[in-house]
Amino acid sequence: RTYRVAVIPGDGIGKEVVPEGVRVLEKVAKRHGITLKLDWYDFSSCDYYLKHGRMMPEDWKAQIGGHDAIFFGAVGWPKAVPDHVSLWGSLLLFRRDFDQYVNLRPVKLLPGVPCPLAGRQPGDIDFMVVRENTEGEYSSIGGKMFPGTEREFVVQETVMTRTGIDRVLKYAFELARKRPKRHLTSATKSNGISITMPYWDERVEEMAKAYPDVRWDKYHIDILTANFVLHPDWFDVVVGSNLFGDILSDLGPACAGTIGIAAAANINPERTWPSVFEPVHGSAPDIAGQGIANPIGQIWSGAMMLDHLGEGEAAAAVLKAIETVLAEKTLRTRDLGGNADTVACGKAIAEMI
Amino acid sequence: RTYRVAVIPGDGIGKEVVPEGVRVLEKVAKRHGITLKLDWYDFSSCDYYLKHGRMMPEDWKAQIGGHDAIFFGAVGWPKAVPDHVSLWGSLLLFRRDFDQYVNLRPVKLLPGVPCPLAGRQPGDIDFMVVRENTEGEYSSIGGKMFPGTEREFVVQETVMTRTGIDRVLKYAFELARKRPKRHLTSATKSNGISITMPYWDERVEEMAKAYPDVRWDKYHIDILTANFVLHPDWFDVVVGSNLFGDILSDLGPACAGTIGIAAAANINPERTWPSVFEPVHGSAPDIAGQGIANPIGQIWSGAMMLDHLGEGEAAAAVLKAIETVLAEKTLRTRDLGGNADTVACGKAIAEMI
Ligand SMILES: CC(C)[C@H](C(=O)O)[C@@H](O)C(=O)O
Ligand SMILES: CC(C)[C@H](C(=O)O)[C@@H](O)C(=O)O
Repeated sequence: RTYRVAVIPGDGIGKEVVPEGVRVLEKVAKRHGITLKLDWYDFSSCDYYLKHGRMMPEDWKAQIGGHDAIFFGAVGWPKAVPDHVSLWGSLLLFRRDFDQYVNLRPVKLLPGVPCPLAGRQPGDIDFMVVRENTEGEYSSIGGKMFPGTEREFVVQETVMTRTGIDRVLKYAFELARKRPKRHLTSATKSNGISITMPYWDERVEEMAKAYPDVRWDKYHIDILTANFVLHPDWFDVVVGSNLFGDILSDLGPACAGTIGIAAAANINPERTWPSVFEPVHGSAPDIAGQGIANPIGQIWSGAMMLDHLGEGEAAAAVLKAIETVLAEKTLRTRDLGGNADTVACGKAIAEMI
Repeated sequence: RTYRVAVIPGDGIGKEVVPEGVRVLEKVAKRHGITLKLDWYDFSSCDYYLKHGRMMPEDWKAQIGGHDAIFFGAVGWPKAVPDHVSLWGSLLLFRRDFDQYVNLRPVKLLPGVPCPLAGRQPGDIDFMVVRENTEGEYSSIGGKMFPGTEREFVVQETVMTRTGIDRVLKYAFELARKRPKRHLTSATKSNGISITMPYWDERVEEMAKAYPDVRWDKYHIDILTANFVLHPDWFDVVVGSNLFGDILSDLGPACAGTIGIAAAANINPERTWPSVFEPVHGSAPDIAGQGIANPIGQIWSGAMMLDHLGEGEAAAAVLKAIETVLAEKTLRTRDLGGNADTVACGKAIAEMI
């Protein structure tokens, strides 16, 4: 089995953790008889922007649109390039143009990771957040009136389409069906956001009919965030709109210890376009360049990529190696109380495979 | 000093906890030489709706609009009346029609309250959430197109006015200025919600210029919720839009132990209209009618009312009584590991005053 993967380190610690992710991918590929053809790209980074005045070359879609997957570090260097330029010029553009309408993020308390919630053990927290990734609150429709005056106001549309909602719900229900608990939770706020959210609820109710084997419930986003803290063991698959999914997929990993190791996949389930696999942590300018970043989020994202490519066994091997290394204090990076640097941690995980 | 207060028990446990709130208010009034004239109302409840086909009488504004404050229990009985009818017909109507543009919620870990966050002590968590309460994401503008077809979609406007943002920011900065830490945190999401949120940020930056003595920062809502869990000690005054404030003021109290005792105030700072004081918990149909609800959220909301009326000493006395009772296991209600019922807990607090 041969796969073509576009590798994009991007900015900040992306450039430090992506090589470790690649190290582990190459090791596991060798062990499992997989051929990975890696093409490296320097675009989709603020460095590229500073040289070329844009985040990506004009033909970026031709260059990376035919790959089987994109292995992505992080983007953003707000001191040099405003966030809205760097993010809407790469990350958010991938999601829209490659129709990656599912953002998938595991929330799992792993052994060796200190949990901020009192008394929680590995096994207590193990769920998936499925986020709608192309529409909803992240629309680009709206504007300002009466600029510069007392009457000034802005409006922005939230847009939810039946197609857009149904396809991500279908993905979430299918995922729930495959998991032992078969339980889906939908995030809503239909009591306050009175037009779009009741519609979301309606579509969930409709979709649920096709999955009588999946138990489902819904919570308003306010109490849902509270329940992530108070009852993280209640959840199995949690599905939400672009904004709600964004919030829950940072809060979830925080409840499970640290967003420093959280993985994510931006998936185009139809495989018309490549999916993007990038850790949750971002470019982390505050620690970039020191070689101390935790590479586990990147490596875990690599495991998600293998899963997506149909290499479930290889993916499981990577996850197992991560868990083994995490349990060993000296092999952990400093953010988890160890003393390994980025490379040492990456090497340790590669060696476990 | 004489105050006219409209008392509205509302639905569910509202009817059980409001009498305890009143018990404590009457006691503290007596001790502090305050005269409270209480007028009780049965409207703004689902019972009223079932009898009259509407949540409130036509002349509700004439009936309660002239009071100095409204002491409110909870509203909502979804089995009998849909949420959007009961909430938009009372609670959310008060906020708009009485221009209660500030929703203020203390987040404070009190002694005796078990905290879900590992290793946190009373004193570690002590901040205020200031929520914009009239506009933003809770607009009523939008609609559906192509209903019943595959092309069906809904849109809903988020509306933010300069007036609406500035006045709540002013309130938040003034509040921060009065607190020892003088620190304000603004909730944003300007990297994803690209029109309204950058405007919110702009207004914060502008307003901050008038408060050079207040240190301020901002976080995107996703990482902000994570930081509530990981670093609750970072916060002093947190200000957010209607939706973000809603989320943070449920998540905050959850991090501080329980939303079962959280208090809230819906404030019209100009005092053109009465402000509403109501606990965060809601009508709690699951435990209503059993006499076991924790009355502390209601009593604490009463303390916030006294504060708003200018009776700071009386307010402090109520808070102190709450803390004393919470520290005594036998006086707590069951949700906090005690065995007191609603009335016993209310009486214990009244006796401490
Ligand atoms: C009941 C609901 C509409 C309300 C809100 O979202 O404002 C509640 O959650 C609150 O925080 O008071
Ligand atoms: C950087 C930002 C635009 C992005 C988002 O909000 O989607 C990030 O928070 C994420 O979750 O991938």
